This record gives sequence, C-alpha cells and structure tokens, in this order.
Amino acid sequence: MANKQIPKFVYYFGGGKAEGNENMKNLLGGKGANLAEMVNLGIPVPPGFTITTEVCTAYYENNGQWPEGLEEQVKENLAKLESEMGQKFGDPSNPLLVSVRSGARVSMPGMMDTVLNLGLNDAVAEGMIKKTGNPRFVWDSFRRFVHMYSDVVLGAPHEEFEKAIAAMKEKRGVTLDSELVAEDLKELAHQYMEIARETTGKVFPEDPWEQLKGAINAVFGSWNSKRAITYRKIHGIPHDWGTAVNVQAMVFGNMGETSGTGVAFTRDPATGENVFYGEYLMNAQGEDVVAGIRTPVPISQLKADMPEIYAQLESIYKKLEQHYKDMQDIEFTIQEGRLFMLQTRTGKRTGPAAVRMAVEMVEEGLIDEKTAVMRVQPSALDQLLHPMIDPKAKVEVLAKGLPASPGAAVGRVVFTAEAAEEWAARGEQVILVRTETSPEDIGGMHAAQGILTARGGMTSHAAVVARGMGKCCVAGCGAVIINEHQRTMTISGAQFAEGDWITLNGSTGEVIKGKAPLVQPSLTGNFGKLMEMADSIRTMKVRTNADTPVDARQARQFGAEGIGLCRTEHMFFAEDRIRAMREMILADTEQERRAALAKLLPFQKADFVGIFREMAGLPVTVRLLDPPLHEFLPKPEQTKQIAELANDLGVSEAKIRERIEALHELNPMLGFRGCRLGVVYSEIYEMQVKAIFEAACELTREGVQVLPEVMIPLVGTTGEMQMIRDYIVRIADETIAQYGVELKYLVGTMIEVPRAALIADKIAEDAEFFSFGTNDLTQMTFGYSRDDAGRFLDAYLQANVLPADPFQSLDQEGVGQLVELGTKLGRTTRPDLKVGVCGEHGGDPDSVDFFHRAGLDYVSCSPFRVPIARLAAAQAELRNPRRK
Amino acid sequence: MANKQIPKFVYYFGGGKAEGNENMKNLLGGKGANLAEMVNLGIPVPPGFTITTEVCTAYYENNGQWPEGLEEQVKENLAKLESEMGQKFGDPSNPLLVSVRSGARVSMPGMMDTVLNLGLNDAVAEGMIKKTGNPRFVWDSFRRFVHMYSDVVLGAPHEEFEKAIAAMKEKRGVTLDSELVAEDLKELAHQYMEIARETTGKVFPEDPWEQLKGAINAVFGSWNSKRAITYRKIHGIPHDWGTAVNVQAMVFGNMGETSGTGVAFTRDPATGENVFYGEYLMNAQGEDVVAGIRTPVPISQLKADMPEIYAQLESIYKKLEQHYKDMQDIEFTIQEGRLFMLQTRTGKRTGPAAVRMAVEMVEEGLIDEKTAVMRVQPSALDQLLHPMIDPKAKVEVLAKGLPASPGAAVGRVVFTAEAAEEWAARGEQVILVRTETSPEDIGGMHAAQGILTARGGMTSHAAVVARGMGKCCVAGCGAVIINEHQRTMTISGAQFAEGDWITLNGSTGEVIKGKAPLVQPSLTGNFGKLMEMADSIRTMKVRTNADTPVDARQARQFGAEGIGLCRTEHMFFAEDRIRAMREMILADTEQERRAALAKLLPFQKADFVGIFREMAGLPVTVRLLDPPLHEFLPKPEQTKQIAELANDLGVSEAKIRERIEALHELNPMLGFRGCRLGVVYSEIYEMQVKAIFEAACELTREGVQVLPEVMIPLVGTTGEMQMIRDYIVRIADETIAQYGVELKYLVGTMIEVPRAALIADKIAEDAEFFSFGTNDLTQMTFGYSRDDAGRFLDAYLQANVLPADPFQSLDQEGVGQLVELGTKLGRTTRPDLKVGVCGEHGGDPDSVDFFHRAGLDYVSCSPFRVPIARLAAAQAELRNPRRK
Repeated sequence: MANKQIPKFVYYFGGGKAEGNENMKNLLGGKGANLAEMVNLGIPVPPGFTITTEVCTAYYENNGQWPEGLEEQVKENLAKLESEMGQKFGDPSNPLLVSVRSGARVSMPGMMDTVLNLGLNDAVAEGMIKKTGNPRFVWDSFRRFVHMYSDVVLGAPHEEFEKAIAAMKEKRGVTLDSELVAEDLKELAHQYMEIARETTGKVFPEDPWEQLKGAINAVFGSWNSKRAITYRKIHGIPHDWGTAVNVQAMVFGNMGETSGTGVAFTRDPATGENVFYGEYLMNAQGEDVVAGIRTPVPISQLKADMPEIYAQLESIYKKLEQHYKDMQDIEFTIQEGRLFMLQTRTGKRTGPAAVRMAVEMVEEGLIDEKTAVMRVQPSALDQLLHPMIDPKAKVEVLAKGLPASPGAAVGRVVFTAEAAEEWAARGEQVILVRTETSPEDIGGMHAAQGILTARGGMTSHAAVVARGMGKCCVAGCGAVIINEHQRTMTISGAQFAEGDWITLNGSTGEVIKGKAPLVQPSLTGNFGKLMEMADSIRTMKVRTNADTPVDARQARQFGAEGIGLCRTEHMFFAEDRIRAMREMILADTEQERRAALAKLLPFQKADFVGIFREMAGLPVTVRLLDPPLHEFLPKPEQTKQIAELANDLGVSEAKIRERIEALHELNPMLGFRGCRLGVVYSEIYEMQVKAIFEAACELTREGVQVLPEVMIPLVGTTGEMQMIRDYIVRIADETIAQYGVELKYLVGTMIEVPRAALIADKIAEDAEFFSFGTNDLTQMTFGYSRDDAGRFLDAYLQANVLPADPFQSLDQEGVGQLVELGTKLGRTTRPDLKVGVCGEHGGDPDSVDFFHRAGLDYVSCSPFRVPIARLAAAQAELRNPRRK
Repeated sequence: MANKQIPKFVYYFGGGKAEGNENMKNLLGGKGANLAEMVNLGIPVPPGFTITTEVCTAYYENNGQWPEGLEEQVKENLAKLESEMGQKFGDPSNPLLVSVRSGARVSMPGMMDTVLNLGLNDAVAEGMIKKTGNPRFVWDSFRRFVHMYSDVVLGAPHEEFEKAIAAMKEKRGVTLDSELVAEDLKELAHQYMEIARETTGKVFPEDPWEQLKGAINAVFGSWNSKRAITYRKIHGIPHDWGTAVNVQAMVFGNMGETSGTGVAFTRDPATGENVFYGEYLMNAQGEDVVAGIRTPVPISQLKADMPEIYAQLESIYKKLEQHYKDMQDIEFTIQEGRLFMLQTRTGKRTGPAAVRMAVEMVEEGLIDEKTAVMRVQPSALDQLLHPMIDPKAKVEVLAKGLPASPGAAVGRVVFTAEAAEEWAARGEQVILVRTETSPEDIGGMHAAQGILTARGGMTSHAAVVARGMGKCCVAGCGAVIINEHQRTMTISGAQFAEGDWITLNGSTGEVIKGKAPLVQPSLTGNFGKLMEMADSIRTMKVRTNADTPVDARQARQFGAEGIGLCRTEHMFFAEDRIRAMREMILADTEQERRAALAKLLPFQKADFVGIFREMAGLPVTVRLLDPPLHEFLPKPEQTKQIAELANDLGVSEAKIRERIEALHELNPMLGFRGCRLGVVYSEIYEMQVKAIFEAACELTREGVQVLPEVMIPLVGTTGEMQMIRDYIVRIADETIAQYGVELKYLVGTMIEVPRAALIADKIAEDAEFFSFGTNDLTQMTFGYSRDDAGRFLDAYLQANVLPADPFQSLDQEGVGQLVELGTKLGRTTRPDLKVGVCGEHGGDPDSVDFFHRAGLDYVSCSPFRVPIARLAAAQAELRNPRRK
C-alpha cells in the first residue's frame, strides 16, 4: 500500500499553457475546462489551478477527509502560482490573493458561488496598504472577504452582516456604502469576524492556508446542499458527478489610473451587427460597471486612451469568436496596465440579433446552415413578428399578468365587446378589458388592438382566441379590478375610466400606463434566409389553425402548408347567424331543427368558399361543431338579451329560460359537446358536411384545387366514429355526384379524449387521419380544467410539483405517452395514417421536438407561430434525423 | 370429380335414437343438438332432422345454391320422418305437417324464428278436415301458416295481414280472433296469399316441397339479415359460423279432449322448493296457456285426469333434471293421448330460488360446490338483502326512473332535507324528493326511507350516497316535476302534496302511488351456506366503502374484510362541524386556517375512533379530503344562509360572497380538489393525519388492533405524491412516538387521474398501495361528467354507440387498459404493491371479474353489495384460477 500510485488531483493553468483543455469538462468542470482552454489559446487569464471532480467524489467516500496526496498537490500548484505571479500567499510584504469557485460539469445553481480576496488577514492587509498606498481599497477588500467567507464557508447568517453595515452607516450619518471611509471598513471587518464567531461558534481563520482549506471544503460541501440536490433531481443530474474547485490569482481593476475593468460583446447583442460592442470604467471593480453609480465609457474610447491594450483586446475577441464560432460575452480587467481576461461565454442576444448573426455567420463561412438553424431559439422569432415597445422607451409598468399572446398594443380602455366595436367603428384604437372573455366577445376582440383580462390562464378563452388572431393579450392580471357598471377599473390602485390610454406588452405580460412608443416588425432578408434553411432541413409539415379567410391568408404568408384546424363554431357567433343558431337550439323537433339549420347552411358554405380559396392547393382540416350548445344562448342573468330573443323568435321568455336551464351543465368540459352532438342531433353535422362539400365542389368546378379533410371532435368510442363517418361519407359522395366533379377528401378524428388514444387501433379502422387535440387531452389526462387550474397551478410550479405548465409545453411524461401510443396503435391498423396535432402545443418548440420524435406528420398552430414551428421542426430533425 | 365424396348434410332425430348429440352444437346448432340429446335420452319428442351449419356456409360460398347432394339427403330424411309418423308430406288423405326453425351455435336474436304448419295447401286442408272433423282448427292452422310464411319467407309486410284480419273482424262485427268462424279463416288465408302476391310479386307456393325449400333458404338468408349481422358484430360472433335448419313433425294439442299442452318447472322458480310446478290446458295450443283467455290448470290436476301421462311426465322431468343437473323449464304437448316434449331449457328463477336450489342440489349430491357457486347470478343476491314489494301485490306505477339503489321504500313525500329530518323526528316515514341532491342533504337522506330525484344518473350524488347507506333510491326520474316552493309535485300528471304516500322500487326504478305492501329480507341458512362456499373459493378480498361506524358494522355483518374507502368529507357536513369548516375556508392566512382546523380535529378523531373500533383487526383505508371547498359554503342564491353565516362568524356578507365567487369553478370536477388542496393548503391534510393517528394510537393503547392506510386522492404527478407522503409520514411517526405505541400503517394513493395510471411505476416509488377510483377514472378517460352525461348516454345506449353504461359496468376496453397498465407498472417498481379498487364498480359482478383478471388484491364496494362481490369474486376465480 505504501507505494500506491497517487492520481493527479490538481491541474494548473497559466504561463501560456494549461494542463487541461475544453474537452475535459467531466474532470475539470465547465469553468475549469474553459479557463484552461483560454490559457491554451494564448489569452492572458489570471493563472490558477483546478482540483478535479474526482476529488469531490473521493472526499464524500472518505467521510469528508482529503485523499492522500491532495494537500501536497495543492501546495505544489500554489507554489507554481506564487512563482508565476511573483507574489507569496500570506506574505504581508508581497501577498498573493486568490478566488475560490465551484464548477461542475454543467452550470448548477445551488452550489457555492465565489469567495474573493482569499489570503487576507490583518497583517497581510497592512502589507498591502504599504504596497498600494490605498488603505480604503485594502480594507474594503478585506471586509468583503470576511463577509463572503463567513457566509458561505462558516455558515453565518447573511442578514447579520447587512445589519452591521446599516448600523455603521447610520452611525456615520451616510447613506451609501461608498461613503464609508477606510477606518469604518476596517472596523466592520472586525465586527464581521465577531458576528461569525457568535452565530456559528467558529473562529474566523487568520492563517491563509486554513482559509484556503476551508473554502475548498465548502465547495465540496455545497455539492450536497439541499438546493443543489433538489436541482439535480429535477434536471436528472447524477449525484456522483461531483464538482471541481477553481483557485485563481486575484487581479484588481481598482488599483489606480492604469487599472480598469469592462464587459463587451463580440457583436451587437441588440441588432446582431458585426461590431465590437461594450463599455468599461477605469479604476473600478467589475461590479461598479453594472451598479450604475458611475457611468461606464463606450469601448471605442479605450482605443484612444490605451491603444495597446485595445489592440490586444481586439485580437483576443476575434480569436475567441473564431474559436467558439459564436458571439462571445467577455469580461476583462486591466491591472496596472496589464490585460487579464476573466471570462468568456456565449452572449445572450435579442431575437432579431440572433437571426442576423446566424445568417451572417453562414455568409462569412464561420458556421454551416445546420449550425445557424440550431443557433436561433425558435421562441425568439416572436419578437420579429409583432410590433414591440421601443426598447429605449421609459415606461411605467402598472402590473404584470400572463404573457398570453405576444406583441404590443396601445389603445383606449373599453369594458365591453359592444363598446370596443363602437369605438373602433369611429376610428379609435381600443384595448378591451374584461374579467374574462366568452365567445360572445369575439367581435369586440377583433375590433380591439389588444385584450387584457383579470382572470384566466395561458389557455383561457381570451389567450387562445388572441393568439389565433395574432393579437396582443395579457391574461389573468389579478391586479386589475373592473367595475363594469361604472365603466372604471383600478390597476394596483391607479384609477382608469373608459377612454383612458394604456399599453400592453403581450410578450412580457406587462400592463403600462399611457401610450408607449412602438416599433413595427420588419421581416428582413435575414429572416427569410433563415426560414429557407429551416425548410430545407425539416421533415415535419407545419399547418395553421385558422377560422377565417383573413387568418388563412396571413398564415400562408408565414409559410403554413395547410390548415390543421378550422373551427366552425366561431362562424355562428356573427350577428347575422346567431339568430338561426338559437332558433335551432330552441327547436323541439328534428324537423324544426332542420328548418333552422337550413338557414345557416348558406353562411357556412360561404365561409368555406372563402377559406378553401385562400388555401388553394393545400389541405384544409375542418372540425365539425364542438362546443356545448349553451354557449350560443344568453346567460341566465342577461335579462335584456333573453327578452329580445323571445321577442325576435316569437317564443316566451320562460321557454328560453327553461332551455338555458336544461342545457346548464356542472362540468361543461365533460358534457354534451363535440361528436356527442353529432350522435344525438346528426342533422347539425349533416348541414355542416353539406356546406363543406357544396363549397368544395363549386370551387373545384372553377378549377380551384380543394383538399378538404373533415374532422370529428371528441371521439372516444368506435361507435361514434363509425356512425358519424358513415353519414359524412354518404353526404359527401352524394354532393360530389350531384356536382359531377372529381374531389378527393379524408374523414378523420381528433384524438383528445384519453380513451381515444387507448383504442386508437380500433378508431383507425374508420379514421383516415388523427389530429391530437392536446389542449383537451391535457385537461383530461391530468384532470385539470384549464379555466380553473390557475388556482393551484401557480403553487404547483412554485413548489416544483410540476416542472412546467402543461398547457404551455406538452407534458411528455404523461400526455406524451398517449400521443405516442395513439400514433403507434393507429398506424398498426393503417400504416399510412396521417397524424398531426392541432392543440396550442403545435407552436411550442419543446413540444414540436417531441411531436417530431413521436413520428407525427405535421403540427398545426396559430398563424403567428408558424415560423416558430418551422424553425423548431428543423431543429428537431437535426437532433433526431428521420432522413438517413 | 364424379366420384367426389358427398358429406353428411342432414342428421335425423327420432325413433328413440338420434344421429347427433348435445356435444355437436357447432355442427347442428344449439337447438338441433338439444333435440338430438332428448331423443337419445329416450324422451318422446316429435321426430325430425337437422341440416348442418356447414350447409349454410356452403350455400353462401355457392351464391345461394344448394350443394350437390343436399336435396337427396333432405328427401331421404323426409321419407324417414313420414315413415316414423305414418303420414305423408303433401298427401291430403294423411298429411305430414312440419315446423322449420333456425338454430345457430348460440342463441341469436335477429334470425328467422319459426314457420309452423308447413305442408298445408287447399287440398291438404280439405283432407285434414275430413280426418279431424274440425274445419275451424284446420283453417286457423292454414291461415297462420300463410301469414308466417308470407312474412318470413316471402318478405311481405306484416302490417298488411293485421289490417286484413281487422277488416274481417269488423265485417263480422266481432272483436276477438277466436270469434271468427271456419269460413272467415279460410277466406282470410286466401286474402293473405293475395296480399303476398301484391306486395312481393311472388306467388304463394301450393307445392309442399317448394314450401319446404323456400323455408330452408329463408333460414339461410336470415343469417345475413341486417339485424343478425349487427348482433354478431356487437357480440363478437364470427360471420362464418352459419346456422343450422331444424325440420320437425308438427304435433297439436288442440285436436280434441285427449289433446292438451302445458309448461312446467322441475322446481318452484319463485322459492326454489323442490316440487314439480306448472300448468296446462286440454284441447289447446301452446300460446293459449300464456295468452290468458282460458285459465290454465295446475299440473297436479293432470295426475288425476291422465295418471299415465302424468307418470310419464314425472319420469321425464326427473330424467331431464338429472341429466342437465339444473332446474328445467319444459314444454309439452299431448296429441290424442300421446305425450311429446317440445322443449327443455334451464329455467329462469328468482334470486332466493337460485340460492336455495344451488345449496340443496349440493346437499342432494347433484352438483358440487363450484357448480353451485357458478349457478347463482351475483346480482340476484340483491333481492335477498333488501325489503321487496310483495310480488303478489297489485300496484299503480306512476313513472320509471333509474334503479339507483335497490330495495323498496314506503313513505310520505317531503321536498327538503330539513323537512325529512323534522318529519322523521316525529316518527313519520318519509320519502325525500329532490330535483337533485347535494352534500348538504345528507342528514335528510339519512332520515328518509328512500330518495327520489328528478335528475342525475346511476352515479349521481343521490345514487352513490344512497347505495352507500343501503337505502332505496330512484334517480333521474324525468317525469317528476317539483315545485319546492309550494311543496307539491306532479308525476306523469298526478298531483302530490307534502305528506302524500308513495312507494319506491329501487331495484326496478318504479315510482308507485300510495303504500305498497313490503316483504322483509330473511338471510336464511342457504344464503350463509352459499357465501361460505364462495369464500372458500375466491382469492380476491372484499372490502367496503363506509364513512360511519354504523355502515362499518353493517358491512362487517355482510362479510367485509376491511374498509377500502372511508371518505372524510361527509364528516364535515354535520351541523356541529360545518361552522368550523366554513371558518377555515373563509380564513385569509395559514394561521387562521390552522386555528379553525384545530376546532375540527377532535371531531375527526372521534369519527376515526368509532370506525377503527368497529373494524378492529381489519385494515381501514382513510381518504384525505377530496371535494372542492366551495361544496362546504352556501350557494350564492342561499341569501338567508349567507346572512346567518356572516352573523355567526362576525364577517361581512360581502366577504362571504366574495369567497364563494372566488371559489366558483367552471368545471369543478377538474378543479381545485383532491390532493391539490393538500399541496396548496397542507394544513388541512396535516390536521386529518393527526386525527387519524391520535385515534389509532389511543385504541392501540387500549389493545384494539388498528391497521390504518392513509390514502391521497387525485394524485397525478410524482411531485404531489412525494410532498404529501413526506408530511404524512412525519406526522404519523411523531404521533406514534408521542404515544409510545407500536403501530404499522401504509401510505398510498388513489389512481383516478389517467396520468397517474400512465406513470404508476414512478408513483409507486412513494406509494405503498394503489386504489383505483374507477368513477373518476371513467369520467376522465371518457371525458364524461357523470352529472351531465345523462343527456347523451341514453341516446348512446339506444343507438349502440356504447354497449353499456360505463359508470355501472367498468369499460374494460378503455378504462380497463389503464387499470391493467397501472397495476403492472406499479408492481414493476414495488412487487408487493397492494392494489384495490374503490369505485362503484367494486360491486358490479362483470367488473369484479375483470379486476380479478387484472390481478387486484381486493375490491371495495358499498356494504349492501359486499355479498355480491364475494360471490362474483368466487366465480371470477373459477373462471380464471389464480390458485393452481
């Protein structure tokens, strides 16, 4: 055992060469590997060394003891560091200070962050003062070190230190930390040590070596902190990976007028333009640049002030971008005229910038098209497709609701759909504000610039309809309290009357006071180029959900390859149709129902003619009537409407009330709707099918290519599918024969009831296509009403009971099983079964990736999400190629 | 090809020996095989022959042509039959008449039933008149033959014949068919032939051989009638089985005073007593016995009138019962002093009779215990467990609702729960009549003899609670129209005021005017013996759903082996508790909620002490709070209650209304309920868990064995299961430690959300048992709200879109998949996982059979269904043994 081989525990980086490199993330952690890589690239970084992740594992296996040989290796590397820096750890005359940081394979919140300025004690501080002649700098560094160390290594309560500094400021009669003088900070440092002793029973170590050992152990300990364990559980990170420890020489940008610090981006992160972009401050620390006390200087100024440093920085940033082949976000410090790079990482960027950089980098030959397509977050495209609030404008945010439908809208407040239509008719821009919307508000929603609701989630009626219209919507903003009667509202205490101006940001959920300035979207050439790249890659089709010719045209411009969901119920709410619809619902006999339906047929037919014409040559999936009939009647409390309707139809109010009561349901979501209507009142669907095929046949005669796909909603049994399919085929064939045209069509079903997915093999005997209705499938698989789940979903997300809102991103673990099962079973019966999805998830990138893996033929989403889905589908193909 | 072997197409039976036997059902059909068997037993049956099912198949393969050799074989057998009968087919001087019947392997409605008297024409009729001297008999037989033949063979419309006979009766000025004389009937027979020719274009065949060929082909044709095909589809009968054809000599019981006909049972079908039981008529046809025009004579009279015939009959019925080892329902005809058996089949019987026969046959050594257990329909036991309306009483049925909870109840009508309690308190028997019931009506339901509702299905609140209480209930009786304000109702037009008497039959759904006489159940020795046999066979345990000590005791008497579902919410509705519950709901802070909950704790604890004591030594599964909180508050329209509550709690009415509004849900079924309460307001469940374990620990100290199983409702995610399990275990262990006792307990979950079944492997990591809540699982898997589905479910059942109400009998095809999957996945994680079911289906025999096959450990059902489940579980074991 004596001559046991001791492994290499510590990897040095510095002196232009590192023992590790960027491929050694498993051993050195992400941060350690990247620091090593920068050194290997010849970039000046403060030197240091990394203790491997294997040591962390050994430490735990060893009950918190260092493995044999570690201490020697740490000391050897410390000596190497001292030698490179020309300083000595703990030597008051020329001290080396270090930072200690954790760093696992993947970035992981919950672990120890950083201890800076380690190596200081009273003697060292005095030595440094002599050397720098700057006592305030030294005592401030000391005080910060004691605070950080006591907090993260000794475990003293953070708030006690805040109290101490607040007391000190009060005593000195000042308000800012920066107004405290050297003596104050020295006193504070010693108070902090006392606090640590009192609250933890541990004495603050004066010996720098003890400090270092303590900090290294604290990093190991933080790997198994409760927060870190929870984070790993949620993200499926193995507990035995361990963390590395990075020990690095400190450099200071606040050591005088030849010192400084800055942050920069290798391209403009707002526009994507290929220019060096950043700012810096001389004689300052990193946090001063972001704190806003002093105004940083644009990076171009550095060229004039320190031309050599700037030239060096320029060559470094270009090298880094070439090396990482992406825009970098860099941090640097200049210590007494010497440049050090502290960090480089891929920079965050706006949507437009991401698109421009990706396309231009392809044109520059830096990356290939596949990389460019992977480079842009699909959801970031949203910003390119809607008006935005001018990012430079100062706005007053009143409250925040859910970002239910993106874009921005400015308008005058109205509280009813009727008012919205009236105001809009006289040329006013309005924002419709409702507690929640209902199908009767459709006209007002159309007329408004944007919609604000006090209640309802991301898939509430307002949210779904607004996204379908591509209209800005902030939903479920609890701070909005409406008095519809008085036509006023308060938002977080502020009063608004009808006609007052507000602005909505549907991308963030913000409600803003007054008229904020907007910038209009421009679908520049780069956007088009990126979409072309995506289309050449993806294997899954993208359709749209559209109910009107206007939406259909819009979606086609956005690249939709057909309609995946054309709802037919919205067509019945228009004023000229609702009367006949209500007449139908109030009818007592099939004959009376058929008479009322006959009045609706010409309207439906005209709707379909318009939509089919816009979608010439592309498939259009028409869903037969889905909502419960009571949605088309006034509500019991709408006394005036009931009286009008009674008068209009020549029936008693009592009769209307009786029917409203009879149609009332305790759980309408699970009630008499969907194909259940088509089983009990087949005449309703028969009229719709007739309208579809008369429209299709007329256009076919004109030479317009129509590809109708008739979709039955809410099927859960083979009996429903058989019965309704039979009469659809009968009417379709009769109509086609009557017109004497050639017309191909499909009959299929939504899969939105769990049972339908479970017996999909049997349903596929009669269905030629499936379209997963993942909204309802999610509701029933979880047992969550999307109208009511808001009450607990927030708590669930906060308590991590759910990782994400399943109405926004498909629940792949549960609902996803039914999608996979339904697809697989359906194709065992009918190998060429066409399978798509038409729930809201069709426009969610993560969900699109799942649907690609599940083998779906297409996704369908609202028009404004079509480009997002196209990009997401291309990325899905790159991750899991279907094309071999 | 010339010397091709021709198969045997026709099997003769008669002359004391048959070519077939009862094991040849595939070839001869059920009827043909049974006739052969009776002949082989030496029993006199009219002789005849069977054309095999293979001929039917060949007939279809051959485009409706008879296979080569069939005609010869039919003629040969006809000759044999003529020879045995001493008559000749088509010979006017001594004619043979035959019947022709279809007969597949299994009895199958939708196929051709019977053509009687085939072989008659004018010449033959005249010959028979000479022979019998009874022209009315002959022309009546002829007229019936022409009618049947024209209808089923030629396809003439049935109603035309009805019109013709009606016209004839009008012409003669008579009202009964039997008042028509021979000449009228002769004229009618010829009118019928004319009708057949006019409506079908086919001439009625005079030639008996043509008649026979036509009838045989009609039987083959009826195999592919639309009704028969539909029936086969529904019941999964292969289309290529085909049907046999039975041709049998006619015998007549109406040929004079030495002829007669009768029906009898080998034991009393009402009581099960081992006595020969039946009735007969001399000079009559079979249909006269049942038509009620003449009063039949008890079979004992035959002993006096025709002692030899009686002795022969006695020996035959004993032989038949010995042979079939079950009570037989037999039909016989005496033709001119000669006895013929026309049919024997297993006789229908009442529940009490079934039990008595099964047990006595074991005692007689006729059958073994397994056979006895299989012999009794589990659902028939219902009749033994509840009071019944005296079967001999004449009652006036007003309307029919759903048979929601079995038994019968007599009482005076009241319209509110309060009235029910008041009237009951002064010793009145009442029937509670409500449009629908809600949890607030519990007290009134308890006080009433029975419950009648105008709305709601088999699993509505009224139905579920009534079954739980073992109380008679008729639900969803649409004919009941209530005016609660005036305290009156009408049922099918009849007026009732508060206090009027009505009777309910919960086993049939009938609502009866006035006080019907009841008979009380007696659990005789035979019932107990049968249960013992069942218990010695079954491998699945049977528990009960019980919320009170009274129910628990009752269920234990019925043989329950524990409680599978103890709901805790009903405990909160009692007057002394609802106040604290409402205080809790109206609280604004966790602290206030905890204070209100502390008041509820002693009540809950006392409830559990009572239940645990009754169930000493047996497991008790307690489900934590499940319903949405708004169920505990008054409804918005209950102005008086709101005012009282406000006054009582010292808060404003506005505040109460605000909370009611805030808790309102569009789809409460899918809303903020179940474990969602336990995640957001953990303090509620914490109180309940504390109450459970304090109760259990106190009884343990007393020496009572308590086996608590804590069950979390509505779990759909691992996050919910983990979080709630963690605090249950913490509180349980703390409480046990505090009392210093030894107490074992389990923590598990309901599987009632589809997602829970899909991820059961992950949920089982934290759950020690599963209990399928098949009510909610059915609701969510189908997307049917059980409160609302009534509106379309009836139409679905009528149109055969669904084979059965999935809330009554588990949907094995869909919901069953989730039960199987959940069980399988759960046990991959935890092989010893205890799995049960606590939905209403636990008491449904078909569902119990499914749960047995799915490998469940137990079913739990309402107390009155426990014996049914015990018997059903035994039968399930016999069908699919787990014990090898």
